Amino acid sequence: MTTVYDVTTWSVPGNPSATPYNDIGLIINSIIADIKSQQTSQASKPGAVIYIPPGDYSLKTRVNVDVSFLTIRGSGHGFTSLSIRYNAGNTSSWHEINPGGSRVRVENTDGNGEAFRVYRTGDPRLSSVVFENFCLDGVSFGSNENDYTNGKTGILFDSANDSCRVEGMGMVYLERGLVVKDTDALSVSGNFLAECGSCVELTGSGQASKVTDNLIGAGYVGFSIFAEGHFGLLVTGNNIFPRGKSSVHFKNCTRSSITANRLHAFYPGMVNFEGSCTENLVGNNHFLRQMEPFDPLKPYNNGLDDLFGLVHIAGGSNSVIGNHFSFDVPSGSVSPSGQTPTIILVASGNNNYIATNNTVSGIAVHTVVLDASTSGCKVLDSGDSNQVVRYASNYSFRATP
Amino acid sequence: MTTVYDVTTWSVPGNPSATPYNDIGLIINSIIADIKSQQTSQASKPGAVIYIPPGDYSLKTRVNVDVSFLTIRGSGHGFTSLSIRYNAGNTSSWHEINPGGSRVRVENTDGNGEAFRVYRTGDPRLSSVVFENFCLDGVSFGSNENDYTNGKTGILFDSANDSCRVEGMGMVYLERGLVVKDTDALSVSGNFLAECGSCVELTGSGQASKVTDNLIGAGYVGFSIFAEGHFGLLVTGNNIFPRGKSSVHFKNCTRSSITANRLHAFYPGMVNFEGSCTENLVGNNHFLRQMEPFDPLKPYNNGLDDLFGLVHIAGGSNSVIGNHFSFDVPSGSVSPSGQTPTIILVASGNNNYIATNNTVSGIAVHTVVLDASTSGCKVLDSGDSNQVVRYASNYSFRATP
Amino acid sequence: MTTVYDVTTWSVPGNPSATPYNDIGLIINSIIADIKSQQTSQASKPGAVIYIPPGDYSLKTRVNVDVSFLTIRGSGHGFTSLSIRYNAGNTSSWHEINPGGSRVRVENTDGNGEAFRVYRTGDPRLSSVVFENFCLDGVSFGSNENDYTNGKTGILFDSANDSCRVEGMGMVYLERGLVVKDTDALSVSGNFLAECGSCVELTGSGQASKVTDNLIGAGYVGFSIFAEGHFGLLVTGNNIFPRGKSSVHFKNCTRSSITANRLHAFYPGMVNFEGSCTENLVGNNHFLRQMEPFDPLKPYNNGLDDLFGLVHIAGGSNSVIGNHFSFDVPSGSVSPSGQTPTIILVASGNNNYIATNNTVSGIAVHTVVLDASTSGCKVLDSGDSNQVVRYASNYSFRATP
Repeated sequence: MTTVYDVTTWSVPGNPSATPYNDIGLIINSIIADIKSQQTSQASKPGAVIYIPPGDYSLKTRVNVDVSFLTIRGSGHGFTSLSIRYNAGNTSSWHEINPGGSRVRVENTDGNGEAFRVYRTGDPRLSSVVFENFCLDGVSFGSNENDYTNGKTGILFDSANDSCRVEGMGMVYLERGLVVKDTDALSVSGNFLAECGSCVELTGSGQASKVTDNLIGAGYVGFSIFAEGHFGLLVTGNNIFPRGKSSVHFKNCTRSSITANRLHAFYPGMVNFEGSCTENLVGNNHFLRQMEPFDPLKPYNNGLDDLFGLVHIAGGSNSVIGNHFSFDVPSGSVSPSGQTPTIILVASGNNNYIATNNTVSGIAVHTVVLDASTSGCKVLDSGDSNQVVRYASNYSFRATP
Repeated sequence: MTTVYDVTTWSVPGNPSATPYNDIGLIINSIIADIKSQQTSQASKPGAVIYIPPGDYSLKTRVNVDVSFLTIRGSGHGFTSLSIRYNAGNTSSWHEINPGGSRVRVENTDGNGEAFRVYRTGDPRLSSVVFENFCLDGVSFGSNENDYTNGKTGILFDSANDSCRVEGMGMVYLERGLVVKDTDALSVSGNFLAECGSCVELTGSGQASKVTDNLIGAGYVGFSIFAEGHFGLLVTGNNIFPRGKSSVHFKNCTRSSITANRLHAFYPGMVNFEGSCTENLVGNNHFLRQMEPFDPLKPYNNGLDDLFGLVHIAGGSNSVIGNHFSFDVPSGSVSPSGQTPTIILVASGNNNYIATNNTVSGIAVHTVVLDASTSGCKVLDSGDSNQVVRYASNYSFRATP
Repeated sequence: MTTVYDVTTWSVPGNPSATPYNDIGLIINSIIADIKSQQTSQASKPGAVIYIPPGDYSLKTRVNVDVSFLTIRGSGHGFTSLSIRYNAGNTSSWHEINPGGSRVRVENTDGNGEAFRVYRTGDPRLSSVVFENFCLDGVSFGSNENDYTNGKTGILFDSANDSCRVEGMGMVYLERGLVVKDTDALSVSGNFLAECGSCVELTGSGQASKVTDNLIGAGYVGFSIFAEGHFGLLVTGNNIFPRGKSSVHFKNCTRSSITANRLHAFYPGMVNFEGSCTENLVGNNHFLRQMEPFDPLKPYNNGLDDLFGLVHIAGGSNSVIGNHFSFDVPSGSVSPSGQTPTIILVASGNNNYIATNNTVSGIAVHTVVLDASTSGCKVLDSGDSNQVVRYASNYSFRATP
């Protein structure tokens, strides 16, 4: 019994004309069926590894992963910028125009939006499903190559799961890259996820997961990293570049960390707490906010104005400690016009703690703004008395000397 | 001469009935013997890679690694929770009940406790031995599946070593997962080590090593991460979940770092400095202390009370900077009953530096307690004057405004 | 068409005597030529993976990589210390004396200094070239094995590039390990780069790159990590040991991060900002400065004296927050003799922000020195009024209580 499969050597029973070049989805589903037919003992289902050598594959049929311990791996995330290409004009003299490596073109003809769906009912949750070191390429956003919409999703984990890994992957020109529902102890590390509408979305709920050591940058319409209902999430060591509508977006998350990341954005709302986010740590990150420099994308933004804050806090008892903020927006570009931009907005919540944050800006900014609805916020060494605006009646403040 | 071995295709000379399914230890020892017989020139011993495909293997004979540059790798750490399974009652309807991936069941019949022992006398130290991406499964803790004892150790590095790596491994239900003695420039990264008595123990002495980007959670009897006699150890970017008796435990360690981790525990003593630990940095971590929520494990704890501190410092000149503490214990659960819990206890040592730490708690806590034996501690912006208890006569204190 | 190559099974057309043991460069160049002859469609050039099994290979001809999406990978970085060996005297009884794993001896006879050169003219830039998990061994520094010069370079990226990766590599006894020019979104992670003149040099310009989770230590003549003209570089989670002339050296870099690293050096100038470096974050790092303990290397140093600073800042608007400094130099070893050593020197630039840094030293030190040319520096909780020396006329200062 083999547990090591290669998509280029697999023959689909009853369908000799199927190839991974025509439809790698068909091939992988057939391999998964084989794994299930081989591994029938409840006590011993070790799974398998499916290897995708470097090559150019089309996926027309969604892969349905419903076994634990399956690794799907390639040799190369194969990222290249399609955004640059599609905005470059004549590329006829270019060496190459497409991503590569173990490149799977997401071209479903089966009515599904996802290239891979990980889903199983019953117990236990799927465990240790691994996607590693291949490329999911959405190919095109259609008539407007800068709109980041094509209905395509790279990988959808659609039922509760444990100890899964997405590592070393490349994703490009998908409307949604990675979507993981109800996850526990997930690892998203070492990936290159860029030029997707959204890159990482952790939906529903989750705990004890990590998003670490990635290079990530979404489109202006979506999320670079989104987490909903998570607790104990660790987002550290990532280089998150533009142009996601946010860099890290938490919705009703608690007791999580955003630390030691480098964050760069062209819009406000870089770290965006939505709903009620409590007891989170935002520490030791480097924030850079600039204006969009790329002509083709200058028409777009995330719709937020400069009063929203680079860090927007909704919820109490969070800690924002030891961050550096570089705000590089000329006064004429501030929105609303004539207003003073906000770096950290405490929009709601009590007892937030904001200490030793340094802001660098060429124009006057409000380094911290405490909404009137907030209470008990402590602001230490994060701006002077003109920079820290206190609409709240109850707060502690120590100006940076 | 091959240097690429596969345990499933290797025949043990003189023992044709040996298979990796019966005893993978016998197979790997035979492969190592082959490597040694092939590589006899002092100037050229490149080692080899031994591949363990996904599968279900038993190890009955300890593997003795006594060559440098050996990589033992699989395709999948294969973690699944045995703790959930063993406490779930009837699992007859479950899809699967065991870990998977490249799963090695640790079932020694040779009188040894370890699955793998890395050991060599003479010079130089063993270098660049690598364990990568397979599963070491202790299978069971015996009559009490919640006692975390079975005498089994996953990997023991038993002599001084240099530049070794343990990466992408899974370990479960071992009394001791990884034990490394006298190590230099070790890398323990990207692993999933959970539901072991202890997960990572760096014993004896060590320097310039790193434990990074792991998901780790030991049993209540042991260590998630333990280091003894180390200097220059870097523990960063880990998500350390319950229920180790500590999250990171240093014994006589100096000049090391615990930074940007997410730490979650059900007992006091999350970062525990034993003996004399000096000049270490504990920075930018997220600490969460809750009560054990899982009925089967509620009877157990680590024996420490809430006066011990979530961070317990023994030794001087350490820095504790920019951490977030969430203490979520109802007053009725505090031990000793009626006492005020301690977040950071400076139990001994001079000139510790504690700054810009934020504590969130539903009940009154002492954010910092300075033992009377201590001297020269500086406590800045880490609690108000009621929260920072100063039994010492010599200290500096600035209350959080 | 294969896209998976093995250097040990490839035959060079027209050159049947070529082997990877004699000249792996010839082999790999021949494979690359094959890739190019196979992949001629502009729309589909997925590249390939070239595998180097564990073994002992000589490289006499430089490899020229001019295709995107090429992965060159081995099984083992194979580091062992040549410095210890060459200074050990009689090693005739040693088990082994050389590095191993997938070991490529850099022994060019083609007049080139580099083992690998990545270079292409025209558009687009080379993307997603990957070096992974093999060893580049410079073998010897010649008549003086402690001088770190032999003219050999491991890998030179010599034209602009995007999304490339150098991961899990080992390098030893090269004058220059990794040199990358004009890079975008580079990943240098999980490597073991030591005992090279310089380890990582990012030259020219660059953006949005990361150097993370490495073990690195250069020779006294060169750089452990050097970056020039970069912005948005993230240097985090590295354990950087001696003896580079600096640990992290920025030249005209801006808006970059050095966070959560462990840094250890035998000379001043550990974090060295040259030219004008602005808006960078140096946070949550552990610095240790000691004297050279190894007799054979005691004659050498980097030529800087103790007034240079462990952190030397040239340029404005940087943040230095939450670092720990251990300065372990006996008074008799201070240079210039009788002077008070400097921990953080703000040598030039306005509006630097230095907060909550803790210094531990057995002798009196100046924790922060503000040059008279600087303006607007803020120094908070980073030393007392004797320790923070203010030659500047314009600054803010709050002494550590």
